[in-house]
Amino acid sequence: MSGAKLLGVGVGPGDPELITLKALRALTEADVIVHFAKAGCASRARAIAAAHLRGEVTELPLFYPLTTELPRCSEGYRDALRAFYDDAAARIAARLEQGRRVAVICEGDPLFYGSYMHLHARLAPRFAAEIVPGVTGISGCWSAAATPIAQGDDVFTVLPATLPEAEITRRLCDADAAVVMKVGRHLPKLRRALDKSGRMERAIYVERGTMSDAKLMPLSAKRDDHAPYFAVVLVPGWEERP
Amino acid sequence: MSGAKLLGVGVGPGDPELITLKALRALTEADVIVHFAKAGCASRARAIAAAHLRGEVTELPLFYPLTTELPRCSEGYRDALRAFYDDAAARIAARLEQGRRVAVICEGDPLFYGSYMHLHARLAPRFAAEIVPGVTGISGCWSAAATPIAQGDDVFTVLPATLPEAEITRRLCDADAAVVMKVGRHLPKLRRALDKSGRMERAIYVERGTMSDAKLMPLSAKRDDHAPYFAVVLVPGWEERP
Repeated sequence: MSGAKLLGVGVGPGDPELITLKALRALTEADVIVHFAKAGCASRARAIAAAHLRGEVTELPLFYPLTTELPRCSEGYRDALRAFYDDAAARIAARLEQGRRVAVICEGDPLFYGSYMHLHARLAPRFAAEIVPGVTGISGCWSAAATPIAQGDDVFTVLPATLPEAEITRRLCDADAAVVMKVGRHLPKLRRALDKSGRMERAIYVERGTMSDAKLMPLSAKRDDHAPYFAVVLVPGWEERP
Repeated sequence: MSGAKLLGVGVGPGDPELITLKALRALTEADVIVHFAKAGCASRARAIAAAHLRGEVTELPLFYPLTTELPRCSEGYRDALRAFYDDAAARIAARLEQGRRVAVICEGDPLFYGSYMHLHARLAPRFAAEIVPGVTGISGCWSAAATPIAQGDDVFTVLPATLPEAEITRRLCDADAAVVMKVGRHLPKLRRALDKSGRMERAIYVERGTMSDAKLMPLSAKRDDHAPYFAVVLVPGWEERP
């Protein structure tokens, strides 16, 4: 077991060039590469890292359970996810017990809203673990928009669009700069919260931030309310510029 | 002027291996490399990128004005900084007008609390500009601590320790996860705010996150109140783990 190691490896927000040298080394040295994907879909993390995978490396794809019919706050949803992560951790533990180096590749940064955290919480108490941080999806978004997000003594907040309208409004009012994630079907509600908090004028809508087919525009110029789940809205701060 | 381009290039949080392939290409293609440093000090961004700089590349170091005798909220401080950034932008504009590619290298991510933003605001309206995002200093810190920071529908907040104690307390209570920056001499006040908000038990102190001489410990185990300006305190969220 001397060589056994779990690695959480961030591969960045989407552009394959935004991978770090350390992540590349982790891919090269790994015996097993683990990646998450929706059932029936290719892993986005794997697509980002594809050019750097050794041909003979063992891959362990983990497919999220189909939970679309379950409400996210339900017991059933939580049970399904818990069982999925328990099983995934057991399969990885089996490789670690054989002394393997196992790299779990993750979009963005592994410990910032990433699925890797569920494996880390289960396995890091038993095995050596190391994190290779990555460029986050939200950094990719504000960089693609070339929009300074926060400066100096700004308070910066990341919040999900799933929150109630009044809470989003309050939190936008209370932050100098913000990023709203998981926009999807919550866009009409988010528009109202941005209006009420006086932040609509600054709001920038970003879809597929660092992909070649990225969509970026002032939210006020977006005509429809169609937005994918992973779309974000940037609300830049830095109002007092010396 | 056809080749003229301003690049804000993130070189990551400190570990030279946490630089991206895109940043390396930007360094290779640049005619001029710009970096910020305190007067009399070596640039930390330059130290991170040093192994990747071409021997013959032109460097333009920018030394922050000495403002330690001025209160940060004073007119004099703001005037000194404004004059410094105006002058720096003018020197870079002169290179851009000659059709040069100018890469401003930055610790962490250029648009997240970075000095590059001051140049970007002055130059991007006149010249083509591109951002190469980087791994942020705070990602480097929670990765070095191997501590999942935020998950699911967590609200995540970054706040400066310079705020009043009551405001830090309120904001810690109001966030699921937080990072407090610019700790320095504010550590005793921050300890009180963490106690009052019930977050002390979770708080992790990090100094020089991804450097070889990093210091990481539960804040409750740190005996003294000496902390450098750039130290951070992590307050991890993700309390409901499936």
